[in-house]
Amino acid sequence: MTDDMAESANLFPSVRIVLVETSHPGNIGAAARAMKNMGLTRLYLVSPEDFPNEKAVFRSASAVDVVERATVVSSVDEAIEGCHLVVGTSARERRIPWPLLTPKSCAEKVVSERRDDSDIAILFGRESRGLTNEELHRCQFHVNIPTGKAYSSLNLAMAVQVICYEILQAAEGEPLEPDWDMPPATTDAVEHFMTHLEETLVDVGFHDPENPRQLMTRLRRLFTRLRPDEMEINMLRGFLTAVNQRTRSD
Amino acid sequence: MTDDMAESANLFPSVRIVLVETSHPGNIGAAARAMKNMGLTRLYLVSPEDFPNEKAVFRSASAVDVVERATVVSSVDEAIEGCHLVVGTSARERRIPWPLLTPKSCAEKVVSERRDDSDIAILFGRESRGLTNEELHRCQFHVNIPTGKAYSSLNLAMAVQVICYEILQAAEGEPLEPDWDMPPATTDAVEHFMTHLEETLVDVGFHDPENPRQLMTRLRRLFTRLRPDEMEINMLRGFLTAVNQRTRSD
Repeated sequence: MTDDMAESANLFPSVRIVLVETSHPGNIGAAARAMKNMGLTRLYLVSPEDFPNEKAVFRSASAVDVVERATVVSSVDEAIEGCHLVVGTSARERRIPWPLLTPKSCAEKVVSERRDDSDIAILFGRESRGLTNEELHRCQFHVNIPTGKAYSSLNLAMAVQVICYEILQAAEGEPLEPDWDMPPATTDAVEHFMTHLEETLVDVGFHDPENPRQLMTRLRRLFTRLRPDEMEINMLRGFLTAVNQRTRSD
Repeated sequence: MTDDMAESANLFPSVRIVLVETSHPGNIGAAARAMKNMGLTRLYLVSPEDFPNEKAVFRSASAVDVVERATVVSSVDEAIEGCHLVVGTSARERRIPWPLLTPKSCAEKVVSERRDDSDIAILFGRESRGLTNEELHRCQFHVNIPTGKAYSSLNLAMAVQVICYEILQAAEGEPLEPDWDMPPATTDAVEHFMTHLEETLVDVGFHDPENPRQLMTRLRRLFTRLRPDEMEINMLRGFLTAVNQRTRSD
């Protein structure tokens, strides 16, 4: 399939489906097919255990182009670079609650917050144990697929199917365009800010990395939930720099 | 698994999922898992090509009970006997239009028309060519899963997943409410924080009240939008106090 043909299948050119450390190549192929059926083609694979593999091609059926054009990276950071919205699929209750979406509200958010100048990523974890807490803390929102109580663990590609199905459903309705005066900060800009914040917290003696007491996790939840725009991140960093200049000159 | 355990997994005891002449046993297992994930357990197989088969058991994961208790019959007539509502999945446009449902409206119908004294059947056709016209004409309604134009043929088990997902959604009704671990901060607590923040910004030389440049307005918008919880406000104020102690001791 030519690039042009693959592109014509892509109704959501700014949406990345990110599979993290997938064990079974068959699931990669089945996920690619589920994506393409719903008009999504940008597949990212973070350190897949066994890829490329013939099983991925076989299970993808007529979505072999999605498999072949998948972007393979070695970290979640690379997979979400340049994204302004990152959502992580999560089956389990977490110790610190995070902003939580249903598949439908996730899809509505994805559809209405699409931009030309940056991307959206939806993360799917390992077959055995999903996304790690650290990976989930990189997401502004978590999305949970409701299940019956007796058996709550969906197959990975099935989860991709449900989320992509809802995205196509949401796109068919009217998208709601939020109006804002500044572009959103990318997640990597937020990440640089978090590093700067942690250094400053240590500097002023408010944070002891030896005894963290959930401080950084809670601050990370706060700033990912906030979804700052570019100017806000610049203001916050400007404040930290001003603090640094005053405290480091002693 | 005992009968009792299987029954407890069944939220829809009157709903039959009917797979017609399935070629690949793996799809039967994957469909069984998709069903049980969504609280459905009554699987009917019309003349499966290769069943029982180890692949069906493997792909069913923890839904092996659904596979083992499947009812195998030799005709669609037997599979829909005793049903008051029969819906057939259909990918294609048919020559004679039939009452057509979306997955969501199909699910709402299934949920609202459940009865104790008779059953509902949802039919899924062959991997290669779906249901025959004759089979589709046995159904009161057809249901079509919307897809992108480029690739419209869903894997069989994926179609089962989408339909069963919508059935559980329709039955749950209530949207998932995100649970939070801390009470929200009061508006006066946020206001005290804003005052403390402005003082600190002036202290470190980042904010000049004579030349404000929208800074405080933008920061107010930021923290209002954030809707911090009590602990977050305490952490932010703790940080400002630590900054104050370092900068005011000069």
